[in-house]
Amino acid sequence: MSIVVGLDGSDRSFRALRFALEEGKLRGVKVYAVHSLFGGDRTDMGDIERGEKILEEARKIAEEYGVEFEAKMLIRGKSPGEDIVEFAEEVNAIMIVLGMKRRSLMEEVILGKAAKYVVVKAKQPVVLVK
Amino acid sequence: MSIVVGLDGSDRSFRALRFALEEGKLRGVKVYAVHSLFGGDRTDMGDIERGEKILEEARKIAEEYGVEFEAKMLIRGKSPGEDIVEFAEEVNAIMIVLGMKRRSLMEEVILGKAAKYVVVKAKQPVVLVK
Repeated sequence: MSIVVGLDGSDRSFRALRFALEEGKLRGVKVYAVHSLFGGDRTDMGDIERGEKILEEARKIAEEYGVEFEAKMLIRGKSPGEDIVEFAEEVNAIMIVLGMKRRSLMEEVILGKAAKYVVVKAKQPVVLVK
Repeated sequence: MSIVVGLDGSDRSFRALRFALEEGKLRGVKVYAVHSLFGGDRTDMGDIERGEKILEEARKIAEEYGVEFEAKMLIRGKSPGEDIVEFAEEVNAIMIVLGMKRRSLMEEVILGKAAKYVVVKAKQPVVLVK
């Protein structure tokens, strides 16, 4: 059992990380933070370096919580939404945590593309953190 | 501090209730289950009786968890989404839990009307339970 949190480097994704770490501590389960890159032509060294920095920051934050933690970069030719849903299955996740952009009620698309995919496709409860 | 769960009587809303009760137990906070009716011309005795049955079922389920619990019917001329968001503020909620209809990825509207309102308007993390 584990908790998976998507981490794109935004402030809201780090708030989602903290929520996931708190849950991991309460439930005594491992937390995976996932940064997804497509790979191939669509990903360059800058993206990978930026991703490594985000995951390194996540590792530092996780130390505060004393919970089993792993930060992973996924580069497997998938969208972030697909990566998160598939990875959650692989690690037997009981919950997926995502940051959510604040949007107006009038906007047709209220979730980002990745969040929308995860909310629809994931079998687990999805937590949207503002 | 508390956790608020919306309860419309559907199976998914009862799964959301169980998630909320588990969280309430882990975090040691009170759980409120809320059934919202508009009132006035738009609500009849049948709606109220049906609501009472749903809340009574929720009270029975809550007993399994040994967590502080209150099941409330809100009839204040508001939509379920508005009721849930406002009530969550009133009881200083740290989290809102909702059941989510499974829908296809192709559908424009991926959340129900109430869930959409809550996801956009709530300040708290929102948990969507399948």
